[in-house]
Amino acid sequence: MPLGPASTLASGRAVSLAQRFAEVRTVSVALCAPLETEDYVVQSMPDASPAKWHLAHTTWFFEQFVLLPHLAGYRVFDEQFGFLFNSYYETVGPRHRRPERGMLTRPTVDEVLEYRQHVDAHVERLLRTRGVHEDIEQLIELGLHHEQQHQELILMDLKHLLSCNPLRPVYRPQPGPLPRAGEGHSASPEFHAFPEGIYETGHAGEGFCFDNETPRHRVYLQPFAIAHRPVTNAEFGEFIRTGGYERPELWMSDGWATVQAQEWTHPIYWSDSLDSEFTLAGERALDPDVPVCHVSWYEADAFARWADARLPTEAEWEVVASRQPVEGNFLESERFHPQPSGNKSAGPVQMFGDLWEWTASPYFPYPGFQPLRGALGEYNGKFMVNQFVLRGGSFATPRSHIRATYRNFFYPHMRWQFGGIRLAKGRA
Amino acid sequence: MPLGPASTLASGRAVSLAQRFAEVRTVSVALCAPLETEDYVVQSMPDASPAKWHLAHTTWFFEQFVLLPHLAGYRVFDEQFGFLFNSYYETVGPRHRRPERGMLTRPTVDEVLEYRQHVDAHVERLLRTRGVHEDIEQLIELGLHHEQQHQELILMDLKHLLSCNPLRPVYRPQPGPLPRAGEGHSASPEFHAFPEGIYETGHAGEGFCFDNETPRHRVYLQPFAIAHRPVTNAEFGEFIRTGGYERPELWMSDGWATVQAQEWTHPIYWSDSLDSEFTLAGERALDPDVPVCHVSWYEADAFARWADARLPTEAEWEVVASRQPVEGNFLESERFHPQPSGNKSAGPVQMFGDLWEWTASPYFPYPGFQPLRGALGEYNGKFMVNQFVLRGGSFATPRSHIRATYRNFFYPHMRWQFGGIRLAKGRA
Amino acid sequence: MPLGPASTLASGRAVSLAQRFAEVRTVSVALCAPLETEDYVVQSMPDASPAKWHLAHTTWFFEQFVLLPHLAGYRVFDEQFGFLFNSYYETVGPRHRRPERGMLTRPTVDEVLEYRQHVDAHVERLLRTRGVHEDIEQLIELGLHHEQQHQELILMDLKHLLSCNPLRPVYRPQPGPLPRAGEGHSASPEFHAFPEGIYETGHAGEGFCFDNETPRHRVYLQPFAIAHRPVTNAEFGEFIRTGGYERPELWMSDGWATVQAQEWTHPIYWSDSLDSEFTLAGERALDPDVPVCHVSWYEADAFARWADARLPTEAEWEVVASRQPVEGNFLESERFHPQPSGNKSAGPVQMFGDLWEWTASPYFPYPGFQPLRGALGEYNGKFMVNQFVLRGGSFATPRSHIRATYRNFFYPHMRWQFGGIRLAKGRA
Amino acid sequence: MPLGPASTLASGRAVSLAQRFAEVRTVSVALCAPLETEDYVVQSMPDASPAKWHLAHTTWFFEQFVLLPHLAGYRVFDEQFGFLFNSYYETVGPRHRRPERGMLTRPTVDEVLEYRQHVDAHVERLLRTRGVHEDIEQLIELGLHHEQQHQELILMDLKHLLSCNPLRPVYRPQPGPLPRAGEGHSASPEFHAFPEGIYETGHAGEGFCFDNETPRHRVYLQPFAIAHRPVTNAEFGEFIRTGGYERPELWMSDGWATVQAQEWTHPIYWSDSLDSEFTLAGERALDPDVPVCHVSWYEADAFARWADARLPTEAEWEVVASRQPVEGNFLESERFHPQPSGNKSAGPVQMFGDLWEWTASPYFPYPGFQPLRGALGEYNGKFMVNQFVLRGGSFATPRSHIRATYRNFFYPHMRWQFGGIRLAKGRA
Repeated sequence: MPLGPASTLASGRAVSLAQRFAEVRTVSVALCAPLETEDYVVQSMPDASPAKWHLAHTTWFFEQFVLLPHLAGYRVFDEQFGFLFNSYYETVGPRHRRPERGMLTRPTVDEVLEYRQHVDAHVERLLRTRGVHEDIEQLIELGLHHEQQHQELILMDLKHLLSCNPLRPVYRPQPGPLPRAGEGHSASPEFHAFPEGIYETGHAGEGFCFDNETPRHRVYLQPFAIAHRPVTNAEFGEFIRTGGYERPELWMSDGWATVQAQEWTHPIYWSDSLDSEFTLAGERALDPDVPVCHVSWYEADAFARWADARLPTEAEWEVVASRQPVEGNFLESERFHPQPSGNKSAGPVQMFGDLWEWTASPYFPYPGFQPLRGALGEYNGKFMVNQFVLRGGSFATPRSHIRATYRNFFYPHMRWQFGGIRLAKGRA
Repeated sequence: MPLGPASTLASGRAVSLAQRFAEVRTVSVALCAPLETEDYVVQSMPDASPAKWHLAHTTWFFEQFVLLPHLAGYRVFDEQFGFLFNSYYETVGPRHRRPERGMLTRPTVDEVLEYRQHVDAHVERLLRTRGVHEDIEQLIELGLHHEQQHQELILMDLKHLLSCNPLRPVYRPQPGPLPRAGEGHSASPEFHAFPEGIYETGHAGEGFCFDNETPRHRVYLQPFAIAHRPVTNAEFGEFIRTGGYERPELWMSDGWATVQAQEWTHPIYWSDSLDSEFTLAGERALDPDVPVCHVSWYEADAFARWADARLPTEAEWEVVASRQPVEGNFLESERFHPQPSGNKSAGPVQMFGDLWEWTASPYFPYPGFQPLRGALGEYNGKFMVNQFVLRGGSFATPRSHIRATYRNFFYPHMRWQFGGIRLAKGRA
Repeated sequence: MPLGPASTLASGRAVSLAQRFAEVRTVSVALCAPLETEDYVVQSMPDASPAKWHLAHTTWFFEQFVLLPHLAGYRVFDEQFGFLFNSYYETVGPRHRRPERGMLTRPTVDEVLEYRQHVDAHVERLLRTRGVHEDIEQLIELGLHHEQQHQELILMDLKHLLSCNPLRPVYRPQPGPLPRAGEGHSASPEFHAFPEGIYETGHAGEGFCFDNETPRHRVYLQPFAIAHRPVTNAEFGEFIRTGGYERPELWMSDGWATVQAQEWTHPIYWSDSLDSEFTLAGERALDPDVPVCHVSWYEADAFARWADARLPTEAEWEVVASRQPVEGNFLESERFHPQPSGNKSAGPVQMFGDLWEWTASPYFPYPGFQPLRGALGEYNGKFMVNQFVLRGGSFATPRSHIRATYRNFFYPHMRWQFGGIRLAKGRA
Repeated sequence: MPLGPASTLASGRAVSLAQRFAEVRTVSVALCAPLETEDYVVQSMPDASPAKWHLAHTTWFFEQFVLLPHLAGYRVFDEQFGFLFNSYYETVGPRHRRPERGMLTRPTVDEVLEYRQHVDAHVERLLRTRGVHEDIEQLIELGLHHEQQHQELILMDLKHLLSCNPLRPVYRPQPGPLPRAGEGHSASPEFHAFPEGIYETGHAGEGFCFDNETPRHRVYLQPFAIAHRPVTNAEFGEFIRTGGYERPELWMSDGWATVQAQEWTHPIYWSDSLDSEFTLAGERALDPDVPVCHVSWYEADAFARWADARLPTEAEWEVVASRQPVEGNFLESERFHPQPSGNKSAGPVQMFGDLWEWTASPYFPYPGFQPLRGALGEYNGKFMVNQFVLRGGSFATPRSHIRATYRNFFYPHMRWQFGGIRLAKGRA
């Protein structure tokens, strides 16, 4: 990404940026503190990556996009790390094959931590340099949001890895009371109505956003209503017990083919007996009042049809969320699991945090979308096909990383992300 | 699909419906006239079906959805044909596996033709019955549009089958002059501009439509412009010769993965030397002025990026097309190939006929969409995920089958349908 | 295969060779008489070929190895048939891919029959030529045995194809009495003992043999005994009913993996209810006294272990068979199915005809084996790995094609050939 | 394996057995000393296992087959380890899926080492017990030979894992002089002739052997000759440079299919430039005089055909080897690589150690073979199909583990074992 016309970063902003840089970078390593060395290495499926790889890749990102172009005389920590830790940037050069990330027992965890220190020290030096270009701020901000995305990925991938082990290892014991037994006491969700009309969605103005949130643009929405809370384990259990996974008429054709081929009968981490689930705190009783987690888009869509509702579009979701404060159960709460919704509300709850919410919207460029220039244009744009948008962040999302316009995206068969369901209804 | 309140089909409408029924049914068989018996049987890939299967399946459709529920005392032609020739109606019952349609050497072609005569005779009898319910007209109309879709599929699937044979068999010799040699003399396409604002799209009012074209609804469009003609072979050849299939930055990530995995270097039926293509008239020199055919959505999208343009959304396409007469190179012209665009135009040309045009729009339900009730609700609704919309019909589409609101759909990697590219530009 | 020193074929031998040529070639076509045109075309699995392909390939064999090198001025019937109908002769040139033989709807059946007539006429002309080289006799003899192998393959492949059709088509109605119901009245098989010592196996002396039957050589056999008849359906049914397919300890490791992956629970053409089987005469009740047919080597081996016995080695089998007349239920009987063994015997019965018998012997070259020179060296030699030897011919083998030294071979998981089980015991 | 009639192990034998137990068990851990923790965990392909798994599985073997049945009151170290570390013993119970051994980041390496100490202590206690049954000796001896097999597997699997890493990690730097450059100066191998006749092969008498080496039995061998040394890198390089991997006539059909599908152009660890190879000491120049290593049976067979020779049968190999002392480059030499043959010999050299030598013999039971009773009958017997026998041990085989009758076995496409080629000739 070539820089714009010369302009110097104010020293006050440089200081606060250095502080934020240190804080964010520290979190990644802290999240790995409960791991054994062995846990850092293994890739449990092609979609996931080892924790060690995440720690190294996020570091390479700063080395590649900040230090190499902008720190005079910078020499890479290791000539081969570019090959090993480039994720998908075709423009930057060839890469280690994604499904073989787990083959890399070297560099060791300790060597990766050294790599992090090396790059951190140089980024900090860059920020102390007089006359550093203003645009560096944007690049580092992008790198930090990238790092925060990988913090969530570390937890997703680690949960998947631990779930493959019959020993059911615990990442971190869960504090607080045990899940409540029984059928759940949540009343049916309320639906909040919104009128038809022209709305604006997408990011504009101050503050960081990814390129895929732009440009802000008008959309015409039909009248709609949105549930005040996410779908719970109790509700999803009812879907299962009434034959949800056995009734093709509830499913999209591709979803039904997936159900049959993968022999799905419940969300990925639920036990076959439907009374417990694997969590980052190990195997635990299923709390009926907790939002259902780890469903694919296909399952979310089938559930909605069963419930005589639908998923909200991303524009509908954003219209609602933009009226809410960005508060909730985020990474900083260290609960590592969604929390029950509670029993009353004056408006929608848990739109932010707890779980990403599947929308009905295929991930597609906004009208007039322009990706970033250069290699960083590959960050988002080339993935805008075959995926669906999720919104709102999860218990594994850092608080400072999320906003109402944020667009997350996964393929409709994927289930290992921290995703749940909020229902909507149309022009009822 | 349960019938509405009793109301009798007027006898004049019954007569004209019987006439149209006979005409449409005859076309399917006539399309197969050039085939050898051997050509009717083979399934060249899981996405395709044997011609014999198409002839039987369309017949089963009338037997299952018209005769069985509505002709008193009707007995099926063969108890096992429901199993063999049900395509994907889960609600109706179990089916022969799709990828094994080519295993069925029996019933023979002659037996399938007998089946057609049997069902045709009974439908005609039903239409001569006094007091037949008015809603029968809708069901038969649906069955005839279904038959017309399979007429196009017969040609698509047959072309693919014949293309697998090193002998390069000819379906029908192409009449008229040979393709012109040389680089093509079409000027660059003109772009016709349309202002931003609220538009309505979707079907309303008189005339047949599929459920997926409803409900008519408002959309907000940004200002856009659309090319007056489709992309030509000459233009696509230029894309190839300037490295189009070797530059990942032109492609969506899934598209690039497909290019690599499938080793694509040109549209499916082009020769490696880029100077000829396989057609329903056999291998023929590539005409530079003919619209490029048999590209996937991935290729269409990459071409558009290379051309500094984009694909139109389906709403944009419909806004433009709804101002055009439904005229063009359809099945009835018996050319079995797209034709050159000609050199001048006062407005967009070839929006109908010649080739289906990929849009930028994922196939998704319109706001408030309701599928047909009962088994026929499976006709369209369950496929509204992971596919893209194409518009306008092709040289293999019957004239009476197409309209501006018609939504065709294929997966983005598919190339055997008669699909091409029309460019659009955004808020330039 | 270059010819030896000049020597002329005696005209009497040429006449009788021409007669045999005509007879054998006629049988191939006659075997296809019950087929519909549709049945000639389809390839039901990669291991099988369409009947049309067999008719053409056997013809190509004569064109390639007899006419082209030895009939002066011969011109091929069609330049592309060498590509289409070469099976696996790398030395001869490139070939159509084996799993795509079923894509070839052209040439039509009629065109293939013309091809046969063309080649037949030229071979007959060659045999009427004065002074034709003596070695031609060997080549034609090889071509005729090759043709006879494909006659059996036509029936194998056709049975598999028809079995894939839920309509259960009949190839030829079976004459004679219906299978007998009940549990079967065969007594346990008797075991005939043979002493240890040096034996000779392999072909020597007059008469045609394939290269893989040579050289004749000495082997040292331990004392052994062989069952007087093949294993029956009743006996194999007992194996199934006592859990044969559910007890891993009965199976080789690769066999057990196959059972699990393929979900085998009975021989390939048995019904799940274990009371009928698909035959060339359609679905028929299972005759308890008929030898069990269509088992893989893995199943034969597991059955033998269950029966506290083992399979005979090919040397043991040959030692026994070489003392028997070459009589039995061959293709000429037109029964198209194995027959019951009868209840008494003075020695082993059904060693020839009825069913090929799996041996314990991996297919491997005899000590000192030399393949034929030139392209025909690919006929047998390159397949001498990973397969097992079967002996004795089946109901689908022409009588004149079989002998005690004949070595057939299939992979241990294959089941569509006409193969059964004869037990042996070791140094009891 | 039930014990025979009561008989007590002499205390002297118990002491020396305890000593050997301690020695062998120590070697497994010592072999892992150069590893980083990360290296213990990953499974680089389904055929390989993580080093940690080998350490645990060999321990489980003693727990399952020695301690549980024979040490009164023994309690397993961990209830779940039986599930995790049972390799393939169907009789013992269900198992973790083989291709998922690399998912097990827990138990950690340290926990596995604790497991080893726990089991070691209890085996030692068992051996100190008065009146321990004599047959324990056999079981422990079997367990130790099993452990020694896994010592070689640890090195095989580790080499494969490290080879997947572009960093080319070194297991242990190789002592001694660098490989010699140049074309190699070995003369052609001499062939030592042996007369035809009846020989005996297989184990008999004192000393440990596996069940697959029995019973000793007579075989009839044709006259044969065997090369005095293995094939060298220089010779195999010549095979490659003269088109060995491009000439189908040199290959078995299945081998040629593998060459094409896997795109083989040289032995697995050779560089594409044919001048270096990956070794346990990292990437090193290819020594022309060192025996070629890591070829599949298909490559060994093709090479032999190219060299106008063949592979020896296992009986031929054993006849020759039984006349040689069991000396050579074994694990104890700590060279971790085959060594050059030297230039003269009075007889065959390197029959033991350096590299396993492929034979022409499919792995099959000897006449009259009886597997061990009980679960240990699964040790060898169920693998006697589809594989080929290798003989003689390698640089990674402990000296005390090998003998002339020892039968190793791998599938013909496998290349990661330490296997090479010795040529034979037939009745020349």
